[in-house]
Amino acid sequence: MPKFERHIFICTNERKPDDPRGCCTARGSVKIREFFKEEVKRRGLKGKVRANAAGCLDHCEFGPAVVVYPEGVWYHVENEADAREILDRHIEKGEVVERLAIYK
Amino acid sequence: MPKFERHIFICTNERKPDDPRGCCTARGSVKIREFFKEEVKRRGLKGKVRANAAGCLDHCEFGPAVVVYPEGVWYHVENEADAREILDRHIEKGEVVERLAIYK
Repeated sequence: MPKFERHIFICTNERKPDDPRGCCTARGSVKIREFFKEEVKRRGLKGKVRANAAGCLDHCEFGPAVVVYPEGVWYHVENEADAREILDRHIEKGEVVERLAIYK
Repeated sequence: MPKFERHIFICTNERKPDDPRGCCTARGSVKIREFFKEEVKRRGLKGKVRANAAGCLDHCEFGPAVVVYPEGVWYHVENEADAREILDRHIEKGEVVERLAIYK
């Protein structure tokens, strides 16, 4: 019963600036989420793929943290170039982008 | 490269009261998310299962909307009894709870 072929969750959790764990938002995840969302639309993938904001994904040390389901691949996404590579390869072709994957 | 055996996303999107689509938050999803989170902890599933808040999952008409990955099963979760059944059967045993599933 899947609804989306691929579902991207981008952590947009925000903590106080003095929190030692930091947070994905402080590392630019809100902008990265916007980029994923816009690209999904631009590539005509709306309805097949969704780029969702998520609360803390518990991967703070690897943030900005992104997980792609149904494969359950976790990524560290630093910038738009990283996001674009995930869209080009994983989202559109089903390939895991090893260089950005958190778990090997 | 999955991190969690099961990853539950609960829509906690909030819209203005006059928005015709309504929103999952207005239907009690924040409390449902808290219940999932507490139950995951209470059942000793922390680290194996995660109950995450999510932005709009685009299932407003079925809200409160919940999706469980990696299976990608979408549920309408009305109350704690529904959440408990999903935890008992899907999260702990891998069975789809047909009566609560959005897509048949």
